[in-house]
Amino acid sequence: MKLTHLNDNNHPNMVDVSQKNLTHRVAVASGKIIMSKQAYEAVITKNIQKGPVIQTAIIAAIMGAKKTSDIIPMCHPLFISNVDVKVNENPQDYSFLLEVKVKTEGKTGVEMEALSGVSIGLLSIYDMVKAIDKTMVITQIRLEEKSGGKSGGYKRED
Amino acid sequence: MKLTHLNDNNHPNMVDVSQKNLTHRVAVASGKIIMSKQAYEAVITKNIQKGPVIQTAIIAAIMGAKKTSDIIPMCHPLFISNVDVKVNENPQDYSFLLEVKVKTEGKTGVEMEALSGVSIGLLSIYDMVKAIDKTMVITQIRLEEKSGGKSGGYKRED
Amino acid sequence: MKLTHLNDNNHPNMVDVSQKNLTHRVAVASGKIIMSKQAYEAVITKNIQKGPVIQTAIIAAIMGAKKTSDIIPMCHPLFISNVDVKVNENPQDYSFLLEVKVKTEGKTGVEMEALSGVSIGLLSIYDMVKAIDKTMVITQIRLEEKSGGKSGGYKRED
Amino acid sequence: MKLTHLNDNNHPNMVDVSQKNLTHRVAVASGKIIMSKQAYEAVITKNIQKGPVIQTAIIAAIMGAKKTSDIIPMCHPLFISNVDVKVNENPQDYSFLLEVKVKTEGKTGVEMEALSGVSIGLLSIYDMVKAIDKTMVITQIRLEEKSGGKSGGYKRED
Amino acid sequence: MKLTHLNDNNHPNMVDVSQKNLTHRVAVASGKIIMSKQAYEAVITKNIQKGPVIQTAIIAAIMGAKKTSDIIPMCHPLFISNVDVKVNENPQDYSFLLEVKVKTEGKTGVEMEALSGVSIGLLSIYDMVKAIDKTMVITQIRLEEKSGGKSGGYKRED
Amino acid sequence: MKLTHLNDNNHPNMVDVSQKNLTHRVAVASGKIIMSKQAYEAVITKNIQKGPVIQTAIIAAIMGAKKTSDIIPMCHPLFISNVDVKVNENPQDYSFLLEVKVKTEGKTGVEMEALSGVSIGLLSIYDMVKAIDKTMVITQIRLEEKSGGKSGGYKRED
Repeated sequence: MKLTHLNDNNHPNMVDVSQKNLTHRVAVASGKIIMSKQAYEAVITKNIQKGPVIQTAIIAAIMGAKKTSDIIPMCHPLFISNVDVKVNENPQDYSFLLEVKVKTEGKTGVEMEALSGVSIGLLSIYDMVKAIDKTMVITQIRLEEKSGGKSGGYKRED
Repeated sequence: MKLTHLNDNNHPNMVDVSQKNLTHRVAVASGKIIMSKQAYEAVITKNIQKGPVIQTAIIAAIMGAKKTSDIIPMCHPLFISNVDVKVNENPQDYSFLLEVKVKTEGKTGVEMEALSGVSIGLLSIYDMVKAIDKTMVITQIRLEEKSGGKSGGYKRED
Repeated sequence: MKLTHLNDNNHPNMVDVSQKNLTHRVAVASGKIIMSKQAYEAVITKNIQKGPVIQTAIIAAIMGAKKTSDIIPMCHPLFISNVDVKVNENPQDYSFLLEVKVKTEGKTGVEMEALSGVSIGLLSIYDMVKAIDKTMVITQIRLEEKSGGKSGGYKRED
Repeated sequence: MKLTHLNDNNHPNMVDVSQKNLTHRVAVASGKIIMSKQAYEAVITKNIQKGPVIQTAIIAAIMGAKKTSDIIPMCHPLFISNVDVKVNENPQDYSFLLEVKVKTEGKTGVEMEALSGVSIGLLSIYDMVKAIDKTMVITQIRLEEKSGGKSGGYKRED
Repeated sequence: MKLTHLNDNNHPNMVDVSQKNLTHRVAVASGKIIMSKQAYEAVITKNIQKGPVIQTAIIAAIMGAKKTSDIIPMCHPLFISNVDVKVNENPQDYSFLLEVKVKTEGKTGVEMEALSGVSIGLLSIYDMVKAIDKTMVITQIRLEEKSGGKSGGYKRED
Repeated sequence: MKLTHLNDNNHPNMVDVSQKNLTHRVAVASGKIIMSKQAYEAVITKNIQKGPVIQTAIIAAIMGAKKTSDIIPMCHPLFISNVDVKVNENPQDYSFLLEVKVKTEGKTGVEMEALSGVSIGLLSIYDMVKAIDKTMVITQIRLEEKSGGKSGGYKRED
């Protein structure tokens, strides 16, 4: 099984996509942050009408998706034609689920942009709530689906 | 329970630390990425003598920790006096555990720097292995311990 | 009258502050964006409970203040200990007034950080409203007051 | 009147331009900084043959235009094919007028790039002259004209 | 002989490439760092199986190539479709030669991206070895070859 | 001979400076770019009264010095209290010599800031002149002197 990011000398390199076609590509990733009841309620209380913690997370996720090629060493810089973020509150386990969808018309997929957006959005929630709860856990960051590109589509099954 | 990142108008703001003392602060965070046996072995095989995937993750984690105030909206820019990254291979569940320790002498803690370093390091592994396995999950990103500052120390118990 | 940012060769340089003392410094800047009645009302309608346009401007202003030394060529990088943003709605002239206060303990003032925060916050409002109104004007960006440092305080009089 | 940067949940999002055509687009923005006679003359004196303050502002404006998607939360990253900056001295009111023209071949306009370039160029002048005059005002930042794209052209009338 | 980066007012500007065609472009640049025998051997000893200093330089070169339009004032931002780095050890003069190849499909060449990658990769080696040897010299940074674009190919002859 | 940037696992890390003292530190680095007679004269002609190519290089060098911890993986972010750039024209070999002096009061030296400033300044000259001469060579980038810190001063002898 060959790692595509290693060249013939086994050095990391940026995968050569110069011969690939520009196609319309979409990726969706998600992840969640679980916190204490007390912390969850502090966010929710402030959260009436799209409150400040959730808004900040959404903006951080969008800006984070744009920064992907700057923070992930082997990622290609690319044009992003859309980032959309959804946040679901889950009172069962006092968690917030972030879902980030990214679109591009390019030579490479946008999985990393979606995953970076999710990660940075969740880190922003952690940052704003950490004075109340240091035990929060960020978890289940994963690719939900992708389409476009030669390798075809992918849809998570579990 | 008050969210410290909201001002009197309920707008997000950067917490005022101007009256805090400069103290020596340390934070340790960790997180892991779980993959298929096939993907795990591809990384391990290349991993003889500190191989390219793990090295890239370590460098990405260090550079990511430095970028924290740029990607997390309410984080203070600060001087970082040390970042150290450990990677543990776990053949039981085909996972890699990243642990990032950050030190500063400053007015704010470095939890976010440690957590950002972990997240970006794990995202870098995802990026380099995704051609083999799209089902990988990044999980259990959390603060392990911190010391320094007025709120005192913290050590995770589970 | 000597421009402090020019060296003996008349080249731009970063002012030498190595001999200055670390002092507590504060700066407040403001600026406003004037728009059509129609655009103003679209923002206000969405603005119930700290709505998305204003929230985005506040976050952009905070992140913009942190980016000052990256975008203003001769600015010193510095530790920022607080950024706080106020937004006033003005139905008289259909404008929003942004006020940004920045604090540091350092060798240089934070006027530029406050002014950059104001500018970037106002540009963000322009961006989000421009599909409705292209005639908006950003105006009256100025320093309101500063304190700390050898040159003493300043308070705008008009 | 719908704000295009809000999604169905009233959250900010990056406008979806994935279905738009690549077209040649141009935008011109302008703005000015007004200062005291004393400050104006200090700049002008140094300004023989494209002096250091004006040069620095021009370079800051060009680099600032390139940074637009990094500082304005909902802006798309894009390829810029030209940035050109003009500076007019105005001895009547001791002001400098900056005009920035930006071109792209893309799916979104470059108004924000032109406006950001103007703002950052003017802030750079403020920075270099502030030791002489703290009362300077940055004002009249506005779109002059744009062409290309589905919404057609725009030319300011006043 | 006209400098293309100066406009009619003799001000620097970003060259207008809006009328150029998108073509496949490649550039290769190289440069080297010469150090003491002692320093060279410290790197080499650690260098078994692509050791940490050389790996760090390779990653820094790739990330540096991506940052070109951010650090070189008049460079256009562009899509990079490949960056590949080679490192040659030279025991004759205790030097390391870095060679960076960059590809794009765009309106401008990628010479600057290749040259920036080389420079930043070599600076990274300097950084990691400077505790042993402060006398190291970075030298011979130059364009080796380029292809694509209207001005045709170039291949260094010496 | 131990490489200080490798930890006990032979992984790269950011050197731990948490126990070091804040001291006043200075570093000076230099480097040069050699070009054809024709290219040299094109720059010089435009160079009356601190012309645009040289000015751009100076500003790029200052901004590049500030970006050092962002582009060199193991560099500490730090406060810079002064950057000053000198450019010497050398008609003997048609070269420009850049010299960058950086000051800080911190726990780490500023050699890398001075060297990065030199490299980025020289790359900026290459960029602006490359349409005339592709054979230019950037060479002799080296530390001239440093002072401050535990390891004491250094002054280049050749």
